[in-house]
Amino acid sequence: MVKCCTPSQIEAFRLDLENGNGHAQHMSPDSSLNIHDSFMRRAIELARRGIGSTHPNPRVGAVVVNNGKVVGEGWHEYPGGPHGEAAAISSAGVRAKGATLYVTLEPCSAHGRTPPCTDAIRAAGIARVVYASSDPNPKMAGGGRVLAASHIDVIGGVMKEEADLLNRPFFHFIETGRPYVTAKAAISLDGKLATHRQHSQWISGPESRLHAHGVRAEVDAIVIGAGTLHYDNPSLTVRDVEVRGSVPIRVVLCFETPPFAANCKLLSSDAPVRFYVRSSNEHTEKWRAAGVQIEQLNSLDAILRHLAGDGYLHLLLEGGGTLLASFFDGRFADEVLLYQAPILIGGHDAVSLWGGTGVESVDHALRLSDIERRQLGNDQMIRGQVVYPV
Amino acid sequence: MVKCCTPSQIEAFRLDLENGNGHAQHMSPDSSLNIHDSFMRRAIELARRGIGSTHPNPRVGAVVVNNGKVVGEGWHEYPGGPHGEAAAISSAGVRAKGATLYVTLEPCSAHGRTPPCTDAIRAAGIARVVYASSDPNPKMAGGGRVLAASHIDVIGGVMKEEADLLNRPFFHFIETGRPYVTAKAAISLDGKLATHRQHSQWISGPESRLHAHGVRAEVDAIVIGAGTLHYDNPSLTVRDVEVRGSVPIRVVLCFETPPFAANCKLLSSDAPVRFYVRSSNEHTEKWRAAGVQIEQLNSLDAILRHLAGDGYLHLLLEGGGTLLASFFDGRFADEVLLYQAPILIGGHDAVSLWGGTGVESVDHALRLSDIERRQLGNDQMIRGQVVYPV
Repeated sequence: MVKCCTPSQIEAFRLDLENGNGHAQHMSPDSSLNIHDSFMRRAIELARRGIGSTHPNPRVGAVVVNNGKVVGEGWHEYPGGPHGEAAAISSAGVRAKGATLYVTLEPCSAHGRTPPCTDAIRAAGIARVVYASSDPNPKMAGGGRVLAASHIDVIGGVMKEEADLLNRPFFHFIETGRPYVTAKAAISLDGKLATHRQHSQWISGPESRLHAHGVRAEVDAIVIGAGTLHYDNPSLTVRDVEVRGSVPIRVVLCFETPPFAANCKLLSSDAPVRFYVRSSNEHTEKWRAAGVQIEQLNSLDAILRHLAGDGYLHLLLEGGGTLLASFFDGRFADEVLLYQAPILIGGHDAVSLWGGTGVESVDHALRLSDIERRQLGNDQMIRGQVVYPV
Repeated sequence: MVKCCTPSQIEAFRLDLENGNGHAQHMSPDSSLNIHDSFMRRAIELARRGIGSTHPNPRVGAVVVNNGKVVGEGWHEYPGGPHGEAAAISSAGVRAKGATLYVTLEPCSAHGRTPPCTDAIRAAGIARVVYASSDPNPKMAGGGRVLAASHIDVIGGVMKEEADLLNRPFFHFIETGRPYVTAKAAISLDGKLATHRQHSQWISGPESRLHAHGVRAEVDAIVIGAGTLHYDNPSLTVRDVEVRGSVPIRVVLCFETPPFAANCKLLSSDAPVRFYVRSSNEHTEKWRAAGVQIEQLNSLDAILRHLAGDGYLHLLLEGGGTLLASFFDGRFADEVLLYQAPILIGGHDAVSLWGGTGVESVDHALRLSDIERRQLGNDQMIRGQVVYPV
């Protein structure tokens, strides 16, 4: 069976390290755990290099350790490219024989675009596999069991929490069939996205805006509504930060195709643009001719599944209160990311984060969990998972 | 002239301490400053004992130090009682002769309800006075100059910032003629005080509510509007924390006297209750008979000046969005105190912190300065000074 370290596994590992180098003489079981963590941390670092380029595949990093020394490293770089463990084993070459493989995700046991990693692991003569996240993909899961059946030592769940974070969008997609949705907004202390005159520039400060570009660089798609397209004419490009992999697609959700606007900033840059419309009209062909993809779908759920089907597994909502309301009402927002400025805007008709009807009683409020707070200039970044009431 | 420490004053102080005890032999000018701070910190501690009981007088603490040792302590306890420095000198007795007096506020030079402290200081033979805040009261100011003219060493501004905080309501009143107003609210991340059904119990958690009772214990008056009286029927008493001095008066601002309600919780406890009405009606006498003070005034400015005139120098607003809006719109809110819960309530018609019209553009937003943030259970307390746009 695959499970987290047992005392005997830790002891075996300790002895292995002692044979490898003299520094491990006085290692306690706790130190062995820390060594697991330290190699896994490196694997996670490597996995992070794939952020922005591996989707729709998970981000995976791997390290091959022989006699207490790193002899191979690798990560999954792009869909169709080698998996992280295959890359690490290949970089280790003959030194993979008898070594321990640290990998952020349970190795796959089935053919996808590449052969199963369990085969590569066995072929290389890897003696022990330590992994972090379990593979939630039913088609791919069970790699740990396959390896254990081949008399390879298997330890799962090391630094699971950190590694799970790497692939939250992927795991969410496997679980729900929909993309992971981050609802982002710059907001005043009194919850306004804009004044009653729709004025919103700038609620948050430069540090927050830079951070938001960093977030754009990590997602697969940026989503706005027709109102934001019309009032703000945003370009939705990633600026002032490095983009790894592909730039996010820009997506506009509209009831019907908006009137063609040649000055639309979405047309003037390289990232793809897609409009989802409920009904098509005479403007559709003009947008298409200008390079915009137009898809006709009737529900938010269908749109989300369509985006996920095209490999867009992490959406960043940058819309106004109406767009956000439809995501909150439909329970499609998975994470909230607020840049909260220490200002008060006021006004019953100012734009609220979540318009519409909202909840009836405080017990039905949406709650944030796993909250991260960070000071960014004068603003406070607040990021948390949305917990919908039962 | 009165000013902050000059190098020669620091040197004189150093020599004085050296004569007094051997520990000061190697003291640098910086250490002398730290000793000033340390005695002044004690004086501030003593002054804090008056919070809740000295209004409309300022909070003042004092320490008499002779030969490097504390020989007397005192603080202003209640209006009409001895001032802090007089209390400290009296407690020092003959040991005040040649000593240094640390006092949180520049000593008064004029007769109020008690004789001027400058007289008591001269009579006791105090050799040096170190004070923190300057007295902003034009009737009382200039004590430092009076003392300096009597050949007493005077050093002003030591730990001024901390000491000024003690008397923010008092200083604000001297400057504006109005009370210092803290606008308090329990609020969701999206800026709501209640759902569209007026449901608000409980947005904030028990830690926040306990903290709010501590704040109630330190203010002179708690203010709500007619809407909160009607919908919430609050008791507005101080619970679960110690009250020093008098309990805050409960104040309701109404356009006209509300219908008499025998179940009104404000009637069932010992703290005074006052209604400000713009027009009186047939209900007025019933409330009066039940012990409620009724005052008829036509503007918020007049009400605030009336409250200050009665010695209520620090108001805590606990009203809904309408009351808060009139204070924000009138620029009468000086401080904002939010208990922000990590929840989203949503809804265009949910109760916002600041209803009404709000500002036109973000440049006209109210900004908070000197922000203090503190985690209270799941909530975050956010407290800051309101900066109105110019």
